[in-house]
Amino acid sequence: MEMLKEVIEGIKPLDRWAMKEARERIDNLTKPVGSLGKLEEIAVRLSGITGKVYPRVDKKAVIVMAADNGVCSEGVTAYPPEVTAIIARCMVEGIAGVSVFSKLCGARVRVIDIGMKEDVPGKGIENRKIMKGTGNIARGPAMTRYQAVKAIETGIKVAFESADMGDNIIATGEVGIGNTTTSSAVFAALEGLPPEEVTGRGAGLDDEGLQRKIRVIRKAIELNKPDSKDAIDVINKVGGLDIAGLVGIYLGAAYRRIPVVVDGYISSVAALAAAKIAPLCREYMLPSHISAEKGGSLVAQRLGLEPFLNMNMRLGEGSGAVLAFHMIEAATWMIREMKTFDDIGIKRAE
Amino acid sequence: MEMLKEVIEGIKPLDRWAMKEARERIDNLTKPVGSLGKLEEIAVRLSGITGKVYPRVDKKAVIVMAADNGVCSEGVTAYPPEVTAIIARCMVEGIAGVSVFSKLCGARVRVIDIGMKEDVPGKGIENRKIMKGTGNIARGPAMTRYQAVKAIETGIKVAFESADMGDNIIATGEVGIGNTTTSSAVFAALEGLPPEEVTGRGAGLDDEGLQRKIRVIRKAIELNKPDSKDAIDVINKVGGLDIAGLVGIYLGAAYRRIPVVVDGYISSVAALAAAKIAPLCREYMLPSHISAEKGGSLVAQRLGLEPFLNMNMRLGEGSGAVLAFHMIEAATWMIREMKTFDDIGIKRAE
Repeated sequence: MEMLKEVIEGIKPLDRWAMKEARERIDNLTKPVGSLGKLEEIAVRLSGITGKVYPRVDKKAVIVMAADNGVCSEGVTAYPPEVTAIIARCMVEGIAGVSVFSKLCGARVRVIDIGMKEDVPGKGIENRKIMKGTGNIARGPAMTRYQAVKAIETGIKVAFESADMGDNIIATGEVGIGNTTTSSAVFAALEGLPPEEVTGRGAGLDDEGLQRKIRVIRKAIELNKPDSKDAIDVINKVGGLDIAGLVGIYLGAAYRRIPVVVDGYISSVAALAAAKIAPLCREYMLPSHISAEKGGSLVAQRLGLEPFLNMNMRLGEGSGAVLAFHMIEAATWMIREMKTFDDIGIKRAE
Repeated sequence: MEMLKEVIEGIKPLDRWAMKEARERIDNLTKPVGSLGKLEEIAVRLSGITGKVYPRVDKKAVIVMAADNGVCSEGVTAYPPEVTAIIARCMVEGIAGVSVFSKLCGARVRVIDIGMKEDVPGKGIENRKIMKGTGNIARGPAMTRYQAVKAIETGIKVAFESADMGDNIIATGEVGIGNTTTSSAVFAALEGLPPEEVTGRGAGLDDEGLQRKIRVIRKAIELNKPDSKDAIDVINKVGGLDIAGLVGIYLGAAYRRIPVVVDGYISSVAALAAAKIAPLCREYMLPSHISAEKGGSLVAQRLGLEPFLNMNMRLGEGSGAVLAFHMIEAATWMIREMKTFDDIGIKRAE
């Protein structure tokens, strides 16, 4: 708890001076003012995050939190829980979606076992298991508060390791059958929203499954009575270890002043929770896409993140965040490689 | 004219068999069916275009049509006409927006002088000048029909050269002060839309300038009476050489079965004109972003293209199309590098 407290208090505002300088340069590049839209906003934001007018985001990592969810026994998922470990293994073998897109853009993939039921042997998956899957939130809390804090602190440590290894941009990702259920429960509880407004089909539930999932979420909230004012309470009661771990990534990245790219629905719900715990960490987040999962656009809206990509994706894993790396890198190339009207000796149009 | 006719007649439908095979593989990859959204659609489309289930788009080129527009003398632009040549030179020097983003993704930039007033000496710009800038559309036609056809055929030849040099994906771009005016005139004339609905501020007109621009476009259409059923007539009367050249790129790329990525407003208007001339060429087009220029989303809608990027850009040059290369390449990596449930020996969820 002491580490968490220290990190929360240690997150500082963006560097306004660097942002001003970046904005001035961008407004003088050989293009109509404002014509590069969000690329300009990204560049300014990165300057604020890093304190550098010419930031680099060329050491990319996606951090995938892998965990299992006890709520699967309620029949709320299209795939059996064993699939969590199968996909986690595909990730380290380089054949999962997130791995393939990471290879394309030169990002490394870190898969963190923060709470899978199975131990996946062999190299690749980093073992930081808090417990072997959570409890069933329809019957009781997912975990204890102590475990939730420990999972968040684990995420912070993982982010710090990335920073120490030189990663200068981090994307969030996850794998965990049942985690759209826990995410919807967390989202509904944090924002006081009715479960049916934020609950979707996940990996492919039919109508009956969807109705069951909504009932399970409603029951989990009624039973566990999470305190909407206390995001850690919400996570430990109706969340999951992946969500808790991701909260730690957001906090740790912000503390170390590293931009962190938010993936889809689960990652966005975790980002919302992180922003409730430490509002300033919101400034260190960059959007990617909006998940096609129901609730995806609503959580992005609550986070105040407007997506860069419009790909209608809902795979999770960090797959959308990794694709957005390209846009963010383009913004750094824009400010570094384009020239100003002054540079090329032309008087600007008024 | 004979070449144009032959190309129009030679554009064939997509390869349905390759598309079916691609779709089957995609539905068996280790992910929920449909969860990669537009990436899946892109991969299927590329298979249809190329006839290959595992297409490659790793030899990328952006073709920039550079031309001047006589209508600039009506005071409809925020920048003076000399800026066309300045930016064209920045492009070959690698410091313009499109060049910087092309470097990032490994695309080559071809700048085609299809009608600049100035001759830009030195290496880099390919001289295919039809004439030194068009006539002022507020006073008469932009060019003759013969010149419009010649410009379209020039575009076709340029696309063929790219194909011969091994480019397996092409993006469209342009530079030409005054070309949002000509594009809005072409768009309004082709679709019978009122000029005020499709006319925006271009590189940064004030309110007065915008009203003047709308009046000029209205006058150009009233005076020249373009035949909305004949896209070549529309282009020669109220269009520009860049638009004509781009029409040729779309036709030539479709004929050679190369995917062609549509950039922003001007490129989209040219794409609409190309699709009127040869409806099948529409199938070979891929979207990128929607220009923030007024009329941008309407022309995308008329083309039936839903953007991949949501970047609020309006620079033109091909800058948005080049950024979208990454999404399209990711789609090819998805189908090639991800594995099916069968491949990894897992029975699929039903």
